[in-house]
Amino acid sequence: MSALHTVATRQLKRRLGARVDVSAAGCWAASFDSSKISFLPVAVITPRVEADIGLVLVLANKYRVPVTVRGRGTTLMGSAAPVRGGWVLDMLKLNRVVIDADAGMAHVGAGAVTADVQRAAATQGWFYPPDPSSKEYCTIGGNIACNAGGMHGGKYGVTRDFVIALRGFLPTGELVQWGTATKKFAAGFNLRDLWIGSEGLLGVVTGAVLKLIPQPAARWTLLTAFTDEVAALKAARVLFRARVQPAICEFLDRESVLCAERATGQTVFPGQAGRPVILLELAGTVSEVKDLQREVLAWARTQALAYRAARNRAEVEALWAVRRKCSGAMFELGDAKLNEDIVIPMRNYEKFAKFLARLKRDSQLPIPTFGHVADGNLHVNIMYHRANALETKAAEAAVQQLMKTVVAMGGAISGEHGIGLAKTPFLRLQHNPAQVKAMLAVKKALDPRGICNPGKMFSVVRIWKFPKLAIQLPWDHK
Amino acid sequence: MSALHTVATRQLKRRLGARVDVSAAGCWAASFDSSKISFLPVAVITPRVEADIGLVLVLANKYRVPVTVRGRGTTLMGSAAPVRGGWVLDMLKLNRVVIDADAGMAHVGAGAVTADVQRAAATQGWFYPPDPSSKEYCTIGGNIACNAGGMHGGKYGVTRDFVIALRGFLPTGELVQWGTATKKFAAGFNLRDLWIGSEGLLGVVTGAVLKLIPQPAARWTLLTAFTDEVAALKAARVLFRARVQPAICEFLDRESVLCAERATGQTVFPGQAGRPVILLELAGTVSEVKDLQREVLAWARTQALAYRAARNRAEVEALWAVRRKCSGAMFELGDAKLNEDIVIPMRNYEKFAKFLARLKRDSQLPIPTFGHVADGNLHVNIMYHRANALETKAAEAAVQQLMKTVVAMGGAISGEHGIGLAKTPFLRLQHNPAQVKAMLAVKKALDPRGICNPGKMFSVVRIWKFPKLAIQLPWDHK
Repeated sequence: MSALHTVATRQLKRRLGARVDVSAAGCWAASFDSSKISFLPVAVITPRVEADIGLVLVLANKYRVPVTVRGRGTTLMGSAAPVRGGWVLDMLKLNRVVIDADAGMAHVGAGAVTADVQRAAATQGWFYPPDPSSKEYCTIGGNIACNAGGMHGGKYGVTRDFVIALRGFLPTGELVQWGTATKKFAAGFNLRDLWIGSEGLLGVVTGAVLKLIPQPAARWTLLTAFTDEVAALKAARVLFRARVQPAICEFLDRESVLCAERATGQTVFPGQAGRPVILLELAGTVSEVKDLQREVLAWARTQALAYRAARNRAEVEALWAVRRKCSGAMFELGDAKLNEDIVIPMRNYEKFAKFLARLKRDSQLPIPTFGHVADGNLHVNIMYHRANALETKAAEAAVQQLMKTVVAMGGAISGEHGIGLAKTPFLRLQHNPAQVKAMLAVKKALDPRGICNPGKMFSVVRIWKFPKLAIQLPWDHK
Repeated sequence: MSALHTVATRQLKRRLGARVDVSAAGCWAASFDSSKISFLPVAVITPRVEADIGLVLVLANKYRVPVTVRGRGTTLMGSAAPVRGGWVLDMLKLNRVVIDADAGMAHVGAGAVTADVQRAAATQGWFYPPDPSSKEYCTIGGNIACNAGGMHGGKYGVTRDFVIALRGFLPTGELVQWGTATKKFAAGFNLRDLWIGSEGLLGVVTGAVLKLIPQPAARWTLLTAFTDEVAALKAARVLFRARVQPAICEFLDRESVLCAERATGQTVFPGQAGRPVILLELAGTVSEVKDLQREVLAWARTQALAYRAARNRAEVEALWAVRRKCSGAMFELGDAKLNEDIVIPMRNYEKFAKFLARLKRDSQLPIPTFGHVADGNLHVNIMYHRANALETKAAEAAVQQLMKTVVAMGGAISGEHGIGLAKTPFLRLQHNPAQVKAMLAVKKALDPRGICNPGKMFSVVRIWKFPKLAIQLPWDHK
């Protein structure tokens, strides 16, 4: 820790008292996110009111102290890890949730938990669709930082599509507000959306106005099995071409299905053990779902090897339990995972399925893949054993090959996780030098001293080379 | 024209030949948009291929020539007028429209006409909802520049909600691409959305990938009349609180209704002459519309003075014809119009109706007001006679009062028109000094020489003091 940081921290402590924690335990707890790589900060600040944050930023600028904002730290990308030390701003106390049932909007603090927002909206008949798998733990602030998605993305959209306005601080410490609590706004540059997905590099979000939609009155779940991955992804394309938009449309490849089956001791689709599946859910008004149901059954009859509708709530739960199991179960295939969330344009679905089969064969690694086929966002999980040098090398080569192919196919290297530390080696595959230059110019313009979440997104870090903490987090997939 | 600009234009002409028009007629035609205030450029460039634009920008930077991009110039805000002279880039030739019917996306050039995109999508069963009233003329590039809205905004959203990816040039001349043809993208800063609504100040858009949604199979139109404006806006709030989302929900105040009635010689709602109305349209699947219809009729029975459903296509057309007539007919009330498109949060609907009644009374001016009540975006038209100094002064005072009140009520000074020149006096009511400073910093970062659409958004211009061309444009409201 530099002498300047010590002076700055002492001043901060004098101003904010007990809101500043410099204890070893406090600093350790804020030193890592779900990537489980630890970088110790010198203090953790828990703001009680917005103005605390302005003060933190002014001092941080004066003494050039790095500031990393965290919600619950569920990100797998290292985005919330204070890689350059300094101060961590813990936003969990700013967790207000107020529903405006007339306008269909939620006014929330950055520290509000996503599922709490969903529940508060639901009590008034409204629905907040973005649903990252950690939604019982993660915060809206974190969701905004990485533009989180989830299973509902294909039909309803991602976090960005539900953010109406933001409040927060510029890196230089001034309070700002981007947008008003109105669905239309066309006055001045749109820094709201520049902030969304900028992973805390361009400012500190303290609160948001979120858009809600009417809670669907009816839902219907169907499980379909296919001979192989190419057939499954082709069938998905046929469904979307018919302009049928399921609320959820989840694909699990054979390896993912096998993981789930080993973990649960049950067959995902009885009679179709080990087959790739698509699990889909329709949502809407009662009659809308009925209409769509007919179309989806007609599709399943011609496209699937077998299909099966859930007949009651218990069956629905059983089907979705499988989807949730597959991710954790993967650790039977290796003790390390390169967890990617690439996006493939629909026109290249089958081509990508073929590429993935080749990648598995060539790398000799298990690469269970599942994800959201309504929007092409697939979770590709490259499994290996850390202690095995050959496997580690094969995993590194596989992830490079994957990212190059994704970009060559017109896709995105991340759909909902963001870059953080973990994807920094691939940012320049996605963006040409002019694009990166423009981003860095914007960063410099808004954060001239580079204090907000330094070391993320643009500096290349090979995260798999760092030691990982051997801890279990509450939201880890079991 | 400066000597440098002459040198630059000569070089440009040598490189691009007939694509550069320096004729008086050509320059005059590009000297104004629908604000009808003329500022002569020194050349108009019509790019045939993207690379032409890179060349233009490189030369413009070298010689500091202002560059103003135009589509059809339907904006009323002066955003496409070359207020500082220089070069105009005319994008109309870049008008490609390709529909990807599998993915539900349109790949379009910036010069593609909005209604052409809608028609191309419709032939394949897809729907592009944003529908500015000039949609038969205006271009997607222009829609992106001002984040255009239209009548469908409340349920479906505005241009921003349908832009998946953008291509174009940084002000410094490099080709960039923001996003991929995928619904999810979370890699790097989001300069796509920073560009949208930035009115050509941060780059030149050459093409876009647009999201489409399934074409609604059914539509149903209902006209409702109310005792007064407060009752009408209260009734709208009751409808939205019940989570009924009409595809279109248009409000016309008494003065707007009277304008339409005078223009057509017909009564808008027979038996309810001169009453404020709400005209709404439901859209969706056949059974969805049937469900909603029941709810809307129940609402109309309790809330409206009278209501009337269109029984056939001809009746639907007749109802919407009224809505289209009201704007042009206003020029019977004055030869000048301050055309505002403010946005009011739903919670303040009735309060705003009362304010508007006071404003009309105090200013002694006709202020016919109509607009999109599903999103609070109201077109407030302050009518006066230019030659009448008292009226002109009253109009200026009224617009100031309007904007202050809108911001005090938590609303937006523009919902879909943008700032351009016309709303520059009000930008700082909406945005605090830190917000403006951040916007200017971003501008400087991306356009260090300030060549892209200079003089817009941030420099205060009182557009009503400029002489207006006495011309009729094809898209002028008749």
